[in-house]
Parts: sequence; C-alpha cells; structure tokens
Amino acid sequence: MGMARILFINPNSSQACSGGIDAAVAPFRFAGGPSIEVATLREGPPAIYSWHDWYSVAGPLVALVRAERADCFVIACASDPGLAAVREATPTPVLGIFSCAVLAALARAERFGVIALATASKARHLLALRQLGIEARLAAEIALDVTMETLLDPALARRAMADAARQLVREGAGAVVMGCAGMAHHRAAVEAAAGVPVIEPCQAAAAAALGIVLAASAQAPARAAE
Amino acid sequence: MGMARILFINPNSSQACSGGIDAAVAPFRFAGGPSIEVATLREGPPAIYSWHDWYSVAGPLVALVRAERADCFVIACASDPGLAAVREATPTPVLGIFSCAVLAALARAERFGVIALATASKARHLLALRQLGIEARLAAEIALDVTMETLLDPALARRAMADAARQLVREGAGAVVMGCAGMAHHRAAVEAAAGVPVIEPCQAAAAAALGIVLAASAQAPARAAE
Amino acid sequence: MGMARILFINPNSSQACSGGIDAAVAPFRFAGGPSIEVATLREGPPAIYSWHDWYSVAGPLVALVRAERADCFVIACASDPGLAAVREATPTPVLGIFSCAVLAALARAERFGVIALATASKARHLLALRQLGIEARLAAEIALDVTMETLLDPALARRAMADAARQLVREGAGAVVMGCAGMAHHRAAVEAAAGVPVIEPCQAAAAAALGIVLAASAQAPARAAE
Amino acid sequence: MGMARILFINPNSSQACSGGIDAAVAPFRFAGGPSIEVATLREGPPAIYSWHDWYSVAGPLVALVRAERADCFVIACASDPGLAAVREATPTPVLGIFSCAVLAALARAERFGVIALATASKARHLLALRQLGIEARLAAEIALDVTMETLLDPALARRAMADAARQLVREGAGAVVMGCAGMAHHRAAVEAAAGVPVIEPCQAAAAAALGIVLAASAQAPARAAE
Amino acid sequence: MGMARILFINPNSSQACSGGIDAAVAPFRFAGGPSIEVATLREGPPAIYSWHDWYSVAGPLVALVRAERADCFVIACASDPGLAAVREATPTPVLGIFSCAVLAALARAERFGVIALATASKARHLLALRQLGIEARLAAEIALDVTMETLLDPALARRAMADAARQLVREGAGAVVMGCAGMAHHRAAVEAAAGVPVIEPCQAAAAAALGIVLAASAQAPARAAE
Amino acid sequence: MGMARILFINPNSSQACSGGIDAAVAPFRFAGGPSIEVATLREGPPAIYSWHDWYSVAGPLVALVRAERADCFVIACASDPGLAAVREATPTPVLGIFSCAVLAALARAERFGVIALATASKARHLLALRQLGIEARLAAEIALDVTMETLLDPALARRAMADAARQLVREGAGAVVMGCAGMAHHRAAVEAAAGVPVIEPCQAAAAAALGIVLAASAQAPARAAE
Repeated sequence: MGMARILFINPNSSQACSGGIDAAVAPFRFAGGPSIEVATLREGPPAIYSWHDWYSVAGPLVALVRAERADCFVIACASDPGLAAVREATPTPVLGIFSCAVLAALARAERFGVIALATASKARHLLALRQLGIEARLAAEIALDVTMETLLDPALARRAMADAARQLVREGAGAVVMGCAGMAHHRAAVEAAAGVPVIEPCQAAAAAALGIVLAASAQAPARAAE
Repeated sequence: MGMARILFINPNSSQACSGGIDAAVAPFRFAGGPSIEVATLREGPPAIYSWHDWYSVAGPLVALVRAERADCFVIACASDPGLAAVREATPTPVLGIFSCAVLAALARAERFGVIALATASKARHLLALRQLGIEARLAAEIALDVTMETLLDPALARRAMADAARQLVREGAGAVVMGCAGMAHHRAAVEAAAGVPVIEPCQAAAAAALGIVLAASAQAPARAAE
Repeated sequence: MGMARILFINPNSSQACSGGIDAAVAPFRFAGGPSIEVATLREGPPAIYSWHDWYSVAGPLVALVRAERADCFVIACASDPGLAAVREATPTPVLGIFSCAVLAALARAERFGVIALATASKARHLLALRQLGIEARLAAEIALDVTMETLLDPALARRAMADAARQLVREGAGAVVMGCAGMAHHRAAVEAAAGVPVIEPCQAAAAAALGIVLAASAQAPARAAE
Repeated sequence: MGMARILFINPNSSQACSGGIDAAVAPFRFAGGPSIEVATLREGPPAIYSWHDWYSVAGPLVALVRAERADCFVIACASDPGLAAVREATPTPVLGIFSCAVLAALARAERFGVIALATASKARHLLALRQLGIEARLAAEIALDVTMETLLDPALARRAMADAARQLVREGAGAVVMGCAGMAHHRAAVEAAAGVPVIEPCQAAAAAALGIVLAASAQAPARAAE
Repeated sequence: MGMARILFINPNSSQACSGGIDAAVAPFRFAGGPSIEVATLREGPPAIYSWHDWYSVAGPLVALVRAERADCFVIACASDPGLAAVREATPTPVLGIFSCAVLAALARAERFGVIALATASKARHLLALRQLGIEARLAAEIALDVTMETLLDPALARRAMADAARQLVREGAGAVVMGCAGMAHHRAAVEAAAGVPVIEPCQAAAAAALGIVLAASAQAPARAAE
Repeated sequence: MGMARILFINPNSSQACSGGIDAAVAPFRFAGGPSIEVATLREGPPAIYSWHDWYSVAGPLVALVRAERADCFVIACASDPGLAAVREATPTPVLGIFSCAVLAALARAERFGVIALATASKARHLLALRQLGIEARLAAEIALDVTMETLLDPALARRAMADAARQLVREGAGAVVMGCAGMAHHRAAVEAAAGVPVIEPCQAAAAAALGIVLAASAQAPARAAE
C-alpha cells in the first residue's frame, strides 16, 4: 500500500500555482502512506481564465494521464476542467477539486457559499454545481476581483477573503468553499473570521483521494480472491 | 498533530457492530496520524431498526459527545441518527456516515444507488437525501431483506450484495453506496462485481474526517497568529 | 360518530401551552361531533427549544400514543417532532400541526411565509418543508426573537406578528403560517393587518383531523359490509 | 357563526353529480355549524371532459360567485377549473377540491397516487400539481377508462377503484387521491383494500373549508376590536 | 410550400394590438415563403387584463381555429391563453408566443428576465413558466405599471423598458423577454440599452412557426411515400 | 438584410456530415433572405464520438469563428460542443443545435424524448439538459446503437428511428428530438410513425437563427437612431 500514488495535476503551466497545491496537500502525506505528488501541465495556459482555457486543457490532461501511473488522479483547478474526458481515458479514479470541495461543504452544512477569484469563474462554478445537481444549495458566490498586488499581499488577500466569507455567512452560507487553488495558507484564518467551516478544495480532494486509495488497498487480497 | 482524535460512535449497543466499524476504518490509521477510535453507545438499542430507535439515540449521543474530547465526531450508523442534536451540542465537527457516503458517490458518478439491509431503512435514507437536496440523483435503492443466516454467511452475503449492486447499475447507478455499516470486507468484491465504485460509509466518513483534522492541524500556527 | 376522538398532544410539559392549544381548537368542537382533547406530555421539556428537545420527545410521545385510544392523533408543536416514530407505533392517523399549516397555506396561495418565534426554529421548519417537498414555495421566514415580556404583552406581541406578516407579504407571501402554537387569539388581527390568509397551525390540524374522522365515520357501515 | 355558509359549486350541469357531491359532504354538516350547500352550474357542460370545458366554465362560475353570498366557495370538480378567475372575482376564500385532496394526501404520506376516471383528465391533474409545486410527489396516476355501465355498477366500480389503488401502492403511493367527485361511497372500501389513506376530494375540501370558516368565526370579536 | 399559412390570432379585440403583431412579424414574410397573417378575435375583450379574460377567450379561439385553415396557429398574447383547448381542437401545430419567447431566451442565456406591462400579468407568466418547468431560470420579472400616456409616448415607453431591462440584467438576467405583444419597435433599442439579447414574443413565435412549416414542407414527398 | 449570414459550423471534419446539415437547412433558404452556409471544421475529428472529441473542438471552433463574419453562428453537432468558448469569443449570437431542438420540443409538448445514435452520446445530452434546467422534462432517451450498414441503409435506418420514436411516445414523450445531425430526410417519416412532433436539430437551429437575424435586421434603423 505504501506504493499507492495520488497524482494532482495542475492544469495550468504556473509552477507557483503547483507550489501552492503542493503546500495545500502537504498535511495529507504521511510515512508509509500513499505518495501525493503534483504535476504541472506544461501545455496548459498560465491560468484557467476563460472558457477557451477550460476546454483547451482537456486534450493535454488526457495525454498526461495516459503517460502516468497513479491510483487516483486529481484535476487541481477550481473549475474541474476536462474531468469527463480524463475519466473516459482511464479506469483509474479521477476527482475534480471543486466537486470535492462543495460535496465536503454539504457534509458540514445545509447551504454553502463560494469565494471566486474573479467574476469570470462564476459561470464555470455554476456549471459544475448544476452537473452535481446541487445548485439550489448555493447560498451565494462572491468574486474577489482584486488586483494581483492585493492577491500577493498576504494581509490584504486574507482580509479580502475573510470579508467575503463573512458576507457569505450573512447570505445564508453554513460553510464556505474557497473557489481557487493556492490559498490554503489563508484557510484557517478565514474560517476563524467566518465562524463556519471553510473548505480548501485541494485538501478536500486529498481527503477524498485518500478515501479511495486507502479503502482499495485494504482489500486487495479480498478482491484478488474473488 | 499526532494528538488529533477522530471518534466514531456506534449508536447501537452491539459490540460486533462496533468491531465491524473498527475493521472498516483500520486502513485509515497511520503512524503519527490522528487516532481513530470507535465508541459504542451503551444506552443504544441493539440496532437502529425503527424510527423510534432513530430518535431515541439522540439524547445518549449528546451525552457521550459532551463527555468526550475529539477533533471530529462521526455518527456511525447509516441513517445519520441524532446528527442535528449532536452538532448543536458541540463546536467540534460532526459527520454522519450516510451523508459522507452519498457525497463521496457524487464525486465519482452522476447517479448512485443504495443497498439497504432492510426495507425499513429506505425511508430514513430518503429523509437524509432530501435533507442534502440530492434525492434526484438516487438511481434506485434495493433492500436485501435477507435472513440473519444469510448476512452472517460470508459467501451468501457477498453474493446478495453483488446481485443488488449489479441491479442498481442496470437501473442507472454509476456508483453504489453500501447503506449499512459493518460490511466493509465485502466492498472490494462488490465493486469488482458491479464494475462501478462502491462506497463503504465508514470509510467515506473516515476520509472526510481526515480531511477536516489534517487541514486544521496544518494551520494551527497560522490560526494562532491571527 | 359522537364517540370519535381527536387527541392533540402538546409535546412540551407546559400547561399554559396546552391551554393555548385548547383555545385554538375550541371553535372546532360541536355538539354531537368528535371530541377534541389536549394532552400534555409530562416527560416533555418546558418547550421545544433545541434539536435535542426535538429528538427527545419522540419516545414519550410513542408511549403516550400507545396508552391512549383516539381516531386521530395530532402532534401539537410547530416542528412536528417525533412524527415518523409515532406513525410507526400506531395504525391510527397521525398529523403534525406544521405540515397541516403549510399545506393549508398552499391551498390558498402560490407562496407562503412563516413567522417563527425564534431563529432556532427555522432549521426545523426547513427540514419539515424539505420533507414535504415544498421548500421552493417558502417566500420567506421571519423570526420574532422578542423577549418573553413582549410575547406576553398582547398588544406588543400582536404588533410584532403583524409587522412580520406584512414583511412576508412584501417578500412574496400570499399566505402566512404562524410557526408556533398558542397564538391563535392573534390570528384574525394579523390576517387583517397582512391582507392575506393567516393560518394558525392547531386550527389547520383540527380541520384536517375533522376531515379524517368525519369521512371515516360516514362510511363505517359500508366498510363493514365489504 | 351558525350563519356561516360554505358553498360547493358543481361546475357541470349534472344534477346527479351534484347529488354525489352532496352525499360526500353530508358528514361535515352539524347542528349549529356552517351550512354546506351544493349549487349546480346550469351553464356548465354535462361534465368537464375536455380542456374546452375546463376553460369555458370560468365565466359562469364567476357570475355565480358574484351573485351568491358565502364564507367559503369550493369549486367541486377534480381539475379545479376557473380557480384563478373566481379568486380574482371575490375576496371570499375559494378552494379547489383537487388541490385540497392532494394536499391532504401529503399530510399523511410522502408520495401519493391519483385515480382518474379517464386518461384525458391526467393532463389537467398534472397542471394542477405543477401549479402547486408538488409534481415530484406523484407516485403514479391511473385512469380507470371504464364504460359508464361499469361506473354505475357499484360492485364493478368499487373493484376497479380498489384494483387501481392497490396498483398505485405498488408503485410507491403512501396515500391515494380519488381524482373525481361523486365516488365518496366507495372511499372506505377502497381504503380498506389499499391499506393506505384514501382521500375523497369533496371531503378534503369540506374539511379545509371548515378550517377557514371556524377559525374566522372564532375571532370575529377580536378582529372587530382592532 | 408557397401555400403554407401561419395564422397569428390576437385573442383580444383591439385592432391596434393586431396591427402591432403584424408589424412585429413583418420581417418574417418573404417572397415564396409561408403567408403570415394576423386574425383578431372579435369576441375577445379589449385586452387580456384578468384571469377572467384569460379563461374567456378559449372558447372563441377554438371556434376561430375550427373555422380557419392553417399550417400553424399562433396564439398572440403574452400569457398563452387557451393554448391547451386550441391544441385539443386541431391536429395543426399551435404555439403560444410567451412559451416561444422564454424558450428562445433559454437558447441564448442561462437565466432570463421578463418585462410585464402590469403587475397583474405576473401570475399568468409564472403559471406558464411552471408549466414549462423553467421557473427556476427566471432571474426576475419587472412590471412597468405605467400609464397609457407613457405607453403611447414612444420615448417614454422606450425609456421605461430600457430601465427595466437594465435592472433585470443587474438581477442576473442574461436575456430579456418582452412580456407583451405590440412593442416590437422598441426591441432593438432596449437590446442596445441592456447589452443582452431582448426577445420580442411574436417574433420568437414567428421563427418557431417558420421552423415547423418549412421543415414540414420540405419533406412532404417523403412523408407521402411512406 | 439580404446580406445577413447564418453560418452553421460542423465541428467534425466529415464532408458527408456537412452535406447532411446542408440538406437539413435547405428549406430555410429563400430569395432575399439570409444566406445559410455550412462550414466544416477541418481540424475536427471524423465525428464527436467521445468527451475528448467534445472538448478538443472548442479551440478550432473559436479560431474559425474569429476568422469568419456572420450574423449568427450555429454549432451543428448534437452535443453543443464548445458553445461557451465560442460565445466568449464573439459578440455575435451563437446557437447550439441540441439546445435549440429540445427547446423547440418544449414549445410543442410537456415532455420530450431523444433518439441518440449511440449510448455514448447520452451523457453529453444529459449535461446539456441539466445546463438548460430541463432534465425533468426528458421522458426518455433511446440510443440506436446500430451498425454503420444499418445507418446507411435508408429503409433500415428509418425503421430503427421510427421504432425508437414510438417507444419514446409509450414512455411519455409528447415530442421527439433527433439527437444527431444528418438525419433530416427521415424526419417526416418518423413523425408520421410516432404521431407526435419530431424535431430535427439543424432545422430547429435554423429557425432560431432566422428569428435572431430577421428581428435584428428589421430594426437596424431604429437602433441606429438611438
């Protein structure tokens, strides 16, 4: 079981973003446990800003998955790009971090809110929620729409996210989903500010992936014996 | 972080059932990781057979939770009894294994099926699905309604569950939820038979609980620094 | 038919509350008609304030119902506590006053509003609406959250309820449900203030119970003749 | 209060049908209680067989209501024809028997079935259910589509309805609505055969109407005092 | 195919209104194409102001349709009055302009808004949306509720509609439906002001009717050959 | 207005398929009307068989749309691939043929059925229906899953489609959508066999596109005058 491998794939080409994903999932690595690695999609755009980006990474994601071996793949971008194509290309379980995050939110609360980096992401989040059939449980979604300077300034970014989370709680959210990867270092602070569970999507997916590979490893003999 | 504790509470008084829960979550324990323990509700009925049982365990569950310290409580019965009361009684995260299982199924497939031990459980499962807002994603639920002899005979029980899972797939399920605790040793075999992901509820909840405590532990300093 | 008996059960131990229920249903008693009585659950809490209370009364309600004879039982608390357990325990029809009230509202208007005594009740009301499948018809719910002095002051209580009802109408309610028992003496005044039907839940349940027992009594011979 | 009047309006011109309505509501009359009368719409068609009939009775219904005085009007045809127009024409409460019946069914069970006289009625019933927002709670609808001889033969009609009710229960109905007026004398027998509550629509509406007029009469003084 | 005929029926008796419909559909006439004509329902009320009006035109509409020959009938009033009755009366395709307009909006955007002439129309629009099953996609509806002088003053009417459309966009509408016939001359200006597609209902129905008759005409030989 | 141009884009590289689209929309061309042309996506796969294909055509579609001038673009594949990306890339209206077809079906009937060429298409159709919010109106979808020989044999293909359409009607469909392009020559025959409207998706989109460009052209002066 120590050989089990969970592969997060950052579908954009930003190494900084991959680093953020790696930091988010670090607490989910343990001695003797599954390896959790992060691959960067070199053919990807610098970020998934547009629908064009969203569609365009499916092909390279499929190619990467076909070239890799893992016990669980995770598409690590908060609009779950290419999910259906990757699932079609491999029998290995494939998770999307946004789906995992909103489902983790529903395990904690009746209704949830989403913090998006930019307004443009909202339509893709809505598509994912409608696909999951849980659009009605979205209390509200707030886009930060802040400048890159603000995002890179830890104090300003944290304050912007905390303000958004508090506003989502006022609009009925009993849990808050961080609608972008790479912000895990703010999670606990935003949760403390909001007073409700705050879900970081890479961590939600790491937990779900652990669930799959640990359950599978435990019964390999039983399965072989069938 | 090694001190984090996840406490599964079996709301019935059956030690055998607690043993089944313990076996299910064993793969989720690792050196240096959170402890995962199973408590048995002594005041509980031998099993949650009826609505009366379902309501009656809420009080004892609240008392137990108030007397224990944990970083995450899990109510380990596939109808999530007492969930709202327990959440009201503690600031600690509280999960229900059925909710966790169906949400894990939705992370893998469009529609899911449920295998119930007995017809009487279906109404409680339906209540939980309606609470979560995902009733429309239930492809079908099949009750085994087999004798205790069949259940205790490993080969017969496995065959009954595999037959049910295959039938659920024929009715549109892309994933199957085992609607009762204590059957984890059949999970892999049923999955192999059905050809779709099969979710054992204690394991789904163990993964979700790990997600909560590992994410929280990682950022304790950051939170303290706020 | 004069022997038919409708038994309202106040699941809290407050005699004052039972008195309010009795006053609410008084207009539904008539010579030669079914008796309508109100029992107080001695083992109940002083009021159903919490989820813990909500679960805890199920057992005593079942015991009371098993010890009584009636042609229709009514659980007279605006969160329908223990309904499933009581129904399971007796072949006699069992009604919940909140369900009856919102269904009566839907017979009069497209969308309805609910006046709750306290914010804590809203989650239980929402559970009931989701169970009934009519959550989408809730225009809004407003909690009074007033002090006990205000509630006991007839003029202040009436004004608070009238204000809430008018606000619900502004938010789209075509009928208003009083989300607590014991306020029947304000019903007509609130209705006059709001300009839309205002439903008192004990009265809605009394009407539904009359519907059951009068229909049943009429055909006893026919049924016997089958 | 003895002066309160509930007026059922049979929107077709059949005196036999009005007689059936009168028989259905007879158990709801009591000494000192509201009068419950049945008017026949002379301008109506012999029966509401078609959408054309459904629309055409609205005008005459409005005229009749404007010429009558009542404390509650009930449109006594199981497709609730003209309901919106009549409500628009009078400040007096107006009920439709089909709406009342399905709401009464929901007060008793999770899902209900409907027995229609003829296939052509199903579309009108579906319209009403969609208007109420409870289409998802319809387990199934079965049309008898029997000859008039069968309908008029008490034993044959009863057997046809009992067969339909049993089939509806097999398809998931926890209560059954008789989707036509004039069959109240079969209600108890069909209920005994089906083993679940069977709702006769005129009786459901009579109960709802009693709820309105008894609640209103009780507080006339209070209201006057405002 | 040049003989195909699309007949719009204005269900009110206003020649001015029929003229507005005629102007709206003028761009859909072309040499050698289907004739598109507008009939005025002489028995209709001056306008469909009330539910009474809505029901009352069904009978005369049926009579008119039975007396006419067409390849497609269109009921040209923005609450689709009499639609079910007319469909029942003829095998010829029958469209309602409101249904066509909201479905055309959904082909362009996730959510749409509706501009109503008067508040009273909103309930009828809501009925139609619920019938279509797309109520959840209505972002908002705004009633102009302006005086006749304003409506007849081109500049004032256009400004009122543009203001409403902009407000609907702010409330989430990605397309706007003009909820009344006869305002086609404002469509382009309102669309320019709102920045999202604006749908005129007669034009949406004209397009849908062309779709039916052109598709049908193309394959008449094939069909004959069956 | 004669200069208006509707451009259908076949997102696969099959000239035969483009020919089928051209034949389908031929009846929508008329002298002096908008030109209706069909472009073939050279970079596209031979057909949209997989999710991989579905994602992969978005980029080339965007490039093609940026290089072309039209008054309305139509993506002519029955799973509406790339729709969001193309809409993002141009201010020109963009339609998808599947969306247009199911919305046209809803303008004719309460519930519709879909005939798919292959089982693999069903998931993409379901995604589109969920996006539109009308999944609940799908009576059923049947995949032909026939060999290429059957598809190319006119008599066999027609019989297979007619059989499927009749089956969909038995399962509640009041209209049938042909879930693939290139079968327009069978439309009338299948409609005759099924007895309900049968919608060919390219024709439904052609009608919708005509609606957009004819409405727009009519008011160019008015818009200019703003």
